[in-house]
Amino acid sequence: MDRPICFFSDYGYTDDFAGVCRAVIARLAPEIRVIDVTHGLPERDVLAGAVVLRNTLPYMPDRAVILAVVDPGVGGPRRPVALRSHGDRLFVGPDNGLLMHAVDLDGGADVACELDNQELWLTPLSATFHGRDIFAPAAARLAGGLKLEAAGTPVEPESLDRIDLPEPRRHRDGLTAIAVLVDRFGNVALNLRARDLERARLMDTVELLTNGERYHARVARTFASVRASDIVVLIDSYGQASVAVNNGSAAEVLGLDAGDEVRIRRLG
Amino acid sequence: MDRPICFFSDYGYTDDFAGVCRAVIARLAPEIRVIDVTHGLPERDVLAGAVVLRNTLPYMPDRAVILAVVDPGVGGPRRPVALRSHGDRLFVGPDNGLLMHAVDLDGGADVACELDNQELWLTPLSATFHGRDIFAPAAARLAGGLKLEAAGTPVEPESLDRIDLPEPRRHRDGLTAIAVLVDRFGNVALNLRARDLERARLMDTVELLTNGERYHARVARTFASVRASDIVVLIDSYGQASVAVNNGSAAEVLGLDAGDEVRIRRLG
Amino acid sequence: MDRPICFFSDYGYTDDFAGVCRAVIARLAPEIRVIDVTHGLPERDVLAGAVVLRNTLPYMPDRAVILAVVDPGVGGPRRPVALRSHGDRLFVGPDNGLLMHAVDLDGGADVACELDNQELWLTPLSATFHGRDIFAPAAARLAGGLKLEAAGTPVEPESLDRIDLPEPRRHRDGLTAIAVLVDRFGNVALNLRARDLERARLMDTVELLTNGERYHARVARTFASVRASDIVVLIDSYGQASVAVNNGSAAEVLGLDAGDEVRIRRLG
Repeated sequence: MDRPICFFSDYGYTDDFAGVCRAVIARLAPEIRVIDVTHGLPERDVLAGAVVLRNTLPYMPDRAVILAVVDPGVGGPRRPVALRSHGDRLFVGPDNGLLMHAVDLDGGADVACELDNQELWLTPLSATFHGRDIFAPAAARLAGGLKLEAAGTPVEPESLDRIDLPEPRRHRDGLTAIAVLVDRFGNVALNLRARDLERARLMDTVELLTNGERYHARVARTFASVRASDIVVLIDSYGQASVAVNNGSAAEVLGLDAGDEVRIRRLG
Repeated sequence: MDRPICFFSDYGYTDDFAGVCRAVIARLAPEIRVIDVTHGLPERDVLAGAVVLRNTLPYMPDRAVILAVVDPGVGGPRRPVALRSHGDRLFVGPDNGLLMHAVDLDGGADVACELDNQELWLTPLSATFHGRDIFAPAAARLAGGLKLEAAGTPVEPESLDRIDLPEPRRHRDGLTAIAVLVDRFGNVALNLRARDLERARLMDTVELLTNGERYHARVARTFASVRASDIVVLIDSYGQASVAVNNGSAAEVLGLDAGDEVRIRRLG
Repeated sequence: MDRPICFFSDYGYTDDFAGVCRAVIARLAPEIRVIDVTHGLPERDVLAGAVVLRNTLPYMPDRAVILAVVDPGVGGPRRPVALRSHGDRLFVGPDNGLLMHAVDLDGGADVACELDNQELWLTPLSATFHGRDIFAPAAARLAGGLKLEAAGTPVEPESLDRIDLPEPRRHRDGLTAIAVLVDRFGNVALNLRARDLERARLMDTVELLTNGERYHARVARTFASVRASDIVVLIDSYGQASVAVNNGSAAEVLGLDAGDEVRIRRLG
């Protein structure tokens, strides 16, 4: 039975990149449903892409083909791969760690292959657009029922490349976290879960230190529970601790970008 | 019979918000067609969203489910609601006035309910992403045939929250309007219809006063009828008077943002 | 048999323009598949749009209806047209040259008509949004099987408007090219193909002169073959020579915009 394709990339919306991939899929598999989850992944940021894939995986349809492209090494030695998770989703993309946190959440990789069956590639193969020439055609065929074994040479799941999420550092009076994602509202997701805040006893009121400045912040459950323009640390809808400003942009107010450190200290 | 879903939001295209809602709909109702009308509604601007919903309603398919999310009060006391118009479209979104101008244009609300049937929510319910956890699942079920009565507790349509469109002010020599929407071309839609211009006898040549500056402008039917870089007031494709610059951006030339006042005076 | 619609425009993602066209298509032809190839074409830039349509055409499904709107002359004398290529694709859009390079690549125009059958237009016809009122309804009907002859008055394919792609200028020591497209990664496509570089013996190392500055660049096949932040001239995935910076933005580094001249000189 056909599988839907859930398509993630850093292709953006200015260019034809994502749309041409959709056209390639429609050419090869006109009946397959494509769900564009996002093409706004931060450019060339494999870690940020891995976080978004992992965060959103539980909301993807069962049996989906996850087609994901953040591929700064395109044209180099990194392998194009496809794999099946124990949760029976298929994953297609570059072997650079992008897929693996989501795969782990879906039960880990069951079988994997390098997408080296050139009969499935578009020709001439470009050096810079494997989304169009390798990944989209593979996803289309796999969604239509092609067996993973027919897409290329088997590879050991253990050999697939991985990328580590940064770990928060623990201090006596709190934590040092890293900003991993900034959304359009200026909310800044940290590499912290609710339990990290709890264990560090960060609650009610805290101090944030970042880029040489100090800020008071509330630890809160919703925006609605604080005043306009207050800084809050809240557990966002994906379970991550995020810095937010009610009716404003935390990224702007605190001058935060992805990769910045944020020191969180207990107050009182 | 299945209804298509027309999806409007201020989720933007940088993040996964709209895409995850689409995935949730595909999970629950794989056969339902989703039309992404726009996710570029101005952030947290309920009034602008209400204007876009009303403007575009006549172009939406019959029997559509209008799923609309501009929800600055998410997590607070505002109710999540669904309602059926006399025109037999369904509307799903926050009870903050966003929906009601479009509903009025579609014959008014026939029946309404608060979306408090927790069996339809995704769990755990987040505090900040009701589009994913409440609105998208409700829209998917309603599109697939679930009766409105099964989605939650009935509420009186008269109790639904409303938001007033600003009224232009009339003067002896013209009008004072408000900029309500700025589009990507820099065209600035005002809270005026063609008849407002006619009644105020604003035609041919007028003076615009905004942000302390004066500009001459033509009242014209199309861009093609004026010279490049002329300022024009024209009736746009939704019947609104708009300030535009031929081959340029009126927002830039006149320094206009949504919410700004524009005084229009007769000349000659 | 139904044809899919491939939709290209400069409508952007901030506004409802593309989404309302999709809704109009869904109203008229609920079963037709719409592939949004891109709505990020440079605003009002007919030449850039023509290049993207031509580049991407080989990836569009067979028998597709190519619906394309970059229409700075909307409301003026330019005709709305539809035509069928010898490759049996249909093309719908303004008669301003936007379509013709793609049509030529698809075997040239077989038959063409002006979209003047007003029974197919939405009413009232707006002066500024023919995408919604003329082109989308025509594309929907044609995709559903309407004969081209029923969409309006036949016109001679030779009478359709054309727009010339700029030609590179040849020098003893190289070429002067024009930047035609800048993508989200800052890669700058030039009006050059691989064979132009070869004929001018531009290989290995070259000098780029643009906006009064000189840069050394490598002529390379992939990003992976050069060092981070090197400037490269490579043949992009559409066969165009492009200026790129590995892990960076060539548009920023070289200060390049569409329309700028780039002089390429042999070195050594």
